[in-house]
Amino acid sequence: MDIIQVRRDFHRHPEVGFTEFRTAGKVVETLLALGYHVTYGKDAIDGSARRGVPSEKDLQRAFERAIENGADPDIIAPMEGGYTAVIGTLEGNAPGPVVALRFDMDALPITESAEADHVPFAKGFRSEFEGNMHACAHDGHTAIGLGVAKVMAHGNFAGTLKLIFQPAEEGVRGAYAVTEKGMLDDVDYLLCHHLGTNVPLGEIYGGAQGFLATTKMAVHFRGVSSHAGAAPELGKNALLGAATALLNIHAIPRFSSGDTRINVGVLEGGTAANIIPQHAKMIIETRSDSEEVNCDLEERVRKIIAHSAAMHELEYDIDIIGGAIPIKCDEEMVKTVLEAAAEVDGFSSLKGIQTGSRGSEDASYMIKRVQERGGKGTYMIIGTDIAAPHHHEKFDIQEDILPRGVQLLERAAMKLLK
Amino acid sequence: MDIIQVRRDFHRHPEVGFTEFRTAGKVVETLLALGYHVTYGKDAIDGSARRGVPSEKDLQRAFERAIENGADPDIIAPMEGGYTAVIGTLEGNAPGPVVALRFDMDALPITESAEADHVPFAKGFRSEFEGNMHACAHDGHTAIGLGVAKVMAHGNFAGTLKLIFQPAEEGVRGAYAVTEKGMLDDVDYLLCHHLGTNVPLGEIYGGAQGFLATTKMAVHFRGVSSHAGAAPELGKNALLGAATALLNIHAIPRFSSGDTRINVGVLEGGTAANIIPQHAKMIIETRSDSEEVNCDLEERVRKIIAHSAAMHELEYDIDIIGGAIPIKCDEEMVKTVLEAAAEVDGFSSLKGIQTGSRGSEDASYMIKRVQERGGKGTYMIIGTDIAAPHHHEKFDIQEDILPRGVQLLERAAMKLLK
Amino acid sequence: MDIIQVRRDFHRHPEVGFTEFRTAGKVVETLLALGYHVTYGKDAIDGSARRGVPSEKDLQRAFERAIENGADPDIIAPMEGGYTAVIGTLEGNAPGPVVALRFDMDALPITESAEADHVPFAKGFRSEFEGNMHACAHDGHTAIGLGVAKVMAHGNFAGTLKLIFQPAEEGVRGAYAVTEKGMLDDVDYLLCHHLGTNVPLGEIYGGAQGFLATTKMAVHFRGVSSHAGAAPELGKNALLGAATALLNIHAIPRFSSGDTRINVGVLEGGTAANIIPQHAKMIIETRSDSEEVNCDLEERVRKIIAHSAAMHELEYDIDIIGGAIPIKCDEEMVKTVLEAAAEVDGFSSLKGIQTGSRGSEDASYMIKRVQERGGKGTYMIIGTDIAAPHHHEKFDIQEDILPRGVQLLERAAMKLLK
Amino acid sequence: MDIIQVRRDFHRHPEVGFTEFRTAGKVVETLLALGYHVTYGKDAIDGSARRGVPSEKDLQRAFERAIENGADPDIIAPMEGGYTAVIGTLEGNAPGPVVALRFDMDALPITESAEADHVPFAKGFRSEFEGNMHACAHDGHTAIGLGVAKVMAHGNFAGTLKLIFQPAEEGVRGAYAVTEKGMLDDVDYLLCHHLGTNVPLGEIYGGAQGFLATTKMAVHFRGVSSHAGAAPELGKNALLGAATALLNIHAIPRFSSGDTRINVGVLEGGTAANIIPQHAKMIIETRSDSEEVNCDLEERVRKIIAHSAAMHELEYDIDIIGGAIPIKCDEEMVKTVLEAAAEVDGFSSLKGIQTGSRGSEDASYMIKRVQERGGKGTYMIIGTDIAAPHHHEKFDIQEDILPRGVQLLERAAMKLLK
Repeated sequence: MDIIQVRRDFHRHPEVGFTEFRTAGKVVETLLALGYHVTYGKDAIDGSARRGVPSEKDLQRAFERAIENGADPDIIAPMEGGYTAVIGTLEGNAPGPVVALRFDMDALPITESAEADHVPFAKGFRSEFEGNMHACAHDGHTAIGLGVAKVMAHGNFAGTLKLIFQPAEEGVRGAYAVTEKGMLDDVDYLLCHHLGTNVPLGEIYGGAQGFLATTKMAVHFRGVSSHAGAAPELGKNALLGAATALLNIHAIPRFSSGDTRINVGVLEGGTAANIIPQHAKMIIETRSDSEEVNCDLEERVRKIIAHSAAMHELEYDIDIIGGAIPIKCDEEMVKTVLEAAAEVDGFSSLKGIQTGSRGSEDASYMIKRVQERGGKGTYMIIGTDIAAPHHHEKFDIQEDILPRGVQLLERAAMKLLK
Repeated sequence: MDIIQVRRDFHRHPEVGFTEFRTAGKVVETLLALGYHVTYGKDAIDGSARRGVPSEKDLQRAFERAIENGADPDIIAPMEGGYTAVIGTLEGNAPGPVVALRFDMDALPITESAEADHVPFAKGFRSEFEGNMHACAHDGHTAIGLGVAKVMAHGNFAGTLKLIFQPAEEGVRGAYAVTEKGMLDDVDYLLCHHLGTNVPLGEIYGGAQGFLATTKMAVHFRGVSSHAGAAPELGKNALLGAATALLNIHAIPRFSSGDTRINVGVLEGGTAANIIPQHAKMIIETRSDSEEVNCDLEERVRKIIAHSAAMHELEYDIDIIGGAIPIKCDEEMVKTVLEAAAEVDGFSSLKGIQTGSRGSEDASYMIKRVQERGGKGTYMIIGTDIAAPHHHEKFDIQEDILPRGVQLLERAAMKLLK
Repeated sequence: MDIIQVRRDFHRHPEVGFTEFRTAGKVVETLLALGYHVTYGKDAIDGSARRGVPSEKDLQRAFERAIENGADPDIIAPMEGGYTAVIGTLEGNAPGPVVALRFDMDALPITESAEADHVPFAKGFRSEFEGNMHACAHDGHTAIGLGVAKVMAHGNFAGTLKLIFQPAEEGVRGAYAVTEKGMLDDVDYLLCHHLGTNVPLGEIYGGAQGFLATTKMAVHFRGVSSHAGAAPELGKNALLGAATALLNIHAIPRFSSGDTRINVGVLEGGTAANIIPQHAKMIIETRSDSEEVNCDLEERVRKIIAHSAAMHELEYDIDIIGGAIPIKCDEEMVKTVLEAAAEVDGFSSLKGIQTGSRGSEDASYMIKRVQERGGKGTYMIIGTDIAAPHHHEKFDIQEDILPRGVQLLERAAMKLLK
Repeated sequence: MDIIQVRRDFHRHPEVGFTEFRTAGKVVETLLALGYHVTYGKDAIDGSARRGVPSEKDLQRAFERAIENGADPDIIAPMEGGYTAVIGTLEGNAPGPVVALRFDMDALPITESAEADHVPFAKGFRSEFEGNMHACAHDGHTAIGLGVAKVMAHGNFAGTLKLIFQPAEEGVRGAYAVTEKGMLDDVDYLLCHHLGTNVPLGEIYGGAQGFLATTKMAVHFRGVSSHAGAAPELGKNALLGAATALLNIHAIPRFSSGDTRINVGVLEGGTAANIIPQHAKMIIETRSDSEEVNCDLEERVRKIIAHSAAMHELEYDIDIIGGAIPIKCDEEMVKTVLEAAAEVDGFSSLKGIQTGSRGSEDASYMIKRVQERGGKGTYMIIGTDIAAPHHHEKFDIQEDILPRGVQLLERAAMKLLK
């Protein structure tokens, strides 16, 4: 297995959240070939706990595209409908703890650059799925996961290795459903990571904190249309409800008990100048460094939505389309990671816990579950030089990090499996 | 009885709605002296149907002032607390219909002019109750009522004469409660009138329409205060609820089925810069040329208030502090009025039904009640030159209209009492 | 010329406002063949006065579609870019007045019914331009126009006949630009009409009033995006501006001087949950039975937009995408129409001026221009039974009205051309 | 001088911000008697930099009350109009630094408890100025100031002692104007303090930080009234402007660069149900732990006010009625204070810098001015048990702290004057 080629293959076939049929299919094939026990499809993820699932039509189209691009129809059949989590398990040759590593597989709805100075284009592995792109290094994460699978396939360790490949990290939508399925319930040690995030090649953080708890909501208001000239009083105006909600959501107070963020990112409604608008849609997110405060924000948003709707006699529904909570890394795990890094060539700058991120990460649910059940976890940052910011059409990683990442995770896992 | 002096006495002692203790006391005394059967106090008005009743303290202060200014304590005792309606009844010497005339007695919270060119000041009958003023001719209405009482005291007619002196027409607060007490239930013909309203001396309209249905509401929001710096999230912000309500009330749609008006006339709330505001008060009015549409407006306002409050976890209450409905005059009554006017010197211009007013008048409840029970009614406009617009500090009527008004109403009543 | 077939040909090829290339091309061909002097393209319409012009791309696509469907490329070349007005002029054989007739040609963005009970489908002339449909009888109007052209081609009259075929009546977008080009400046008598509008076959109104003045506006707000978690203070939030504008536009007061309507029919903005929204678009309309009041409404909307934008440091622009004014029909013209109708078989119910419409019609600009210059005009309603309401996917007219309509207009025109 | 009696005298005569005529008069008298050079009236405070000055009438009434209660009319004459700052200066017997101590003198608009368990009532020194109360210990601060004046009157030190008695700390209104007058410009060391704030008797903090920058604003909107039924379109609605401003002010974004607070504490407007409201008043405050962010908040509020007004064609003005900035204590000063405390009986718990306050304090302007010019300052917290929270009607201090406070400040000053 050439990990560089594996990553480039994923890069050419980027699949957004819950449509990672081809990617997950390759993962299943590889894990099976290496002798891992593989759990996937509805056995690996709680369907109803998935958030922000694409439409039936989009799921179907992506499923067919995966097959057209080399996915084995028999292997991916259990994934149909968006069940794209894969868990590979390998028992060691002695009893010991369960050590899990988590990798996210999804891409972004970004059209990749086709300019000469963009390496994937220049070297011929630009996205072939036009409009989608691996612009956040998850192709690298997944490739590293398969690399670790290979180097650990010997089974010479005490305990159980569990490799968790999750869908839909973007929009913080997938980890919660994997966790709810119980996939983390037996884990003693959990290692999560991200490449890049402004940390240069050669540097590593053993943990990362500061991620915000967040909730993403989609709201639909449904009113009644009427002719704006002939009978405006017969309408129930969905945009009046939505605009009222928008202003009041922004007016939710600051909290003395936590840092907060609120955004109504999208508002769309109505049909024509002369029609009282009968529908409106909003996409909202709340964030806080406190999970409790974020819950309070979500409750306040729900209340505002409910009464903005009722005020104008609208019906409404609220879907949770994403969410995450803060991460607290265990010192012991951070230490283990840094010890492992010290044994691998290429890591010259070893750091403790990175703080200050105001982003969100859904591995948080997995780490919390492990910790709640007495286990330990960390979220490490593995530096790599990047060609452009994350989520940019020219984003690219330094591929040297891939083999080093495999070594790092192998060492860290081996330290725990004893 | 010198009707001019009677009017000037009332003018010197103006009493606002539900505090007409001295005025109503004089009415009772006069009617009793003339031999009328008099019903008043709680027997003449439904206390709980009164709207916009002054505070206990204001009622008490006015009651005491009335006694200090010549009211007979025994006579006005039943009025204590604001029960200031008076009904005088006189049976004729033969059976016949019940003919009622309605007069309103209340003044306005206006400080009367003390300039030399203001006749009441110049002639020495300016208001002695500083801050109150008869600036809408109700002093004249009441004087005419007593004049009619005197000239009809002979009882030589077929049927029953009923003279209704109502409180609190300003703010459209009193007629509803008199009507709810059943005072109009036996009436066959009802004659209501107003002096002035931009109609010159010598001109009369037999009826008037176009008055808008209206509802006046007082709303109180109650939240929870907290320190705006230390714990803003613990407050429940009454001003956020009120501002949301205000904007949405103004955004109630236009109606194709009727002309509408909406106003939030007053909003007051909060205590200090650094306190999350815990209370807010709003005064709102709706209007429409359609009683049904006005009801719809009121319902919409109520819904907006309820959900603006709930959105911010506020408690609230809504008090109806005034109301009126449209008036529809009966043609037969208009004709009778004009026939009567033709027989009185001084009416040179006889007109049918005046339209186009966008004001409101609570005699509307009385007329509607009579009509609902098979009777007929009208609301006539008796012209008089005025010195300044109604509700102006220099408002004054041409007193020549007072004896003519008495003659007019006497003739009209006599035509009906047969 | 079989007028039924002409109408069905237009029905099969419905073209929305400013894309009536095929329709207008057929009109040009026919008028030329009949000997009319024809003015069209940029000579017949003021390009910059057109409102709500489709995108370059849509115009181009429709232009090509017209050619693919039988339009003569040479004839329609001057129309490229949306210059789809056509004026046919015929001098009579004696001096006399200029008599103009106006016909609108555009269709609607509605997908036509393909159910068996829909006559155009059953008889094989359902729309072939999927997604567009003649659901407001303009196909009939245009067919009648060509029918009139034919029966008047003899030229035996005193004066000048002017047939005006206008684009884009839907959304009240086209008549203004034809008027601004001066096409109405020499007209002495103007006859406009509409088929249907709930008037049954056999009935005709010589005039119609009550149309509301209206302005349709498209607003774009442009702010600055930023990450909602990492740097919300760096964004300039277009949706906050838009929601503030929406509520305040709805809160524009009622007018005592005219009936008013206001609607924000569409609001769309933002991109994702975690991005401060940087753009928003609104579609707004105002209406009034008074042109002056409608202008006041438009000014107030502009002011609200400007300051809602400035409050949030947004840039904005406002495009007028449609407009109309009230119509006042000349009694003389109404009389002429009814005299003409009396001479045509099939009109059994002749009525004066229809009132009460709360719709809008941009022939209003043409009538006003004629009247301002001393001429006279009317807007008649020619009854026809309809299969479903106007703008419904099953709308259809009774074709019997087409030859009768031709006769009616011919008689009316001949009465004026003398 | 019995410091306990001095404090009780101040307690009986509480004067709110800029009306401290009697208090400041007593300070002037005492300082003069002790041999200090005294600067006061317009020489000690910049009149135009004062914020939230009471009305002329309130100032005059308080001035007269001071004289009625024993103030020397000649002494307080220069204070008339609210110039109530007093600076006492004493040159030592050798050259040295300028050491300043700051004391605030104002009371609160609170009615003091008259219950038996309230010590000032029980012991007969409850407020005699009904409605005002020393409920924040400024009576104690001022008494300590006079105590320090006495014990330092010997002048046996190197340098200059400067005692600054400031008006109007409540509402953070007075220190800025004293600073702007240049009173701090020559100061090398500045000692500020507060009693209580939940620190118990015996405990002292050498410094305090965490105070928020704040701006307090009063806004007046002026529109045009009109009759809500007859001509609503002629009004310019001040409450629509105010409600729009209120919602948008609350919707100012969170900042990633600092903690923020925003409150519209008061909104009042309009006159009656049937009048379009022509005026409205708002009291607003912003806060941040960053002075720069607070300035940004103030700018945003100003922009929202300006455009909410312009949107509804209102005029407006904004008055700054209070303000403060964060405090940063110099370590050297904190150390000096604690060394002094160690030498005084009664301070058993010596602590460094207290953090976590989210209140505001206008001594911040004085400390910043001193630091900007190369000097050093601190804001110490001197513990005392309190009977009820600050600003409560039963607030009271433990008077034992008064002599200890004098000793503490004398020791600290002497350490610096050498």
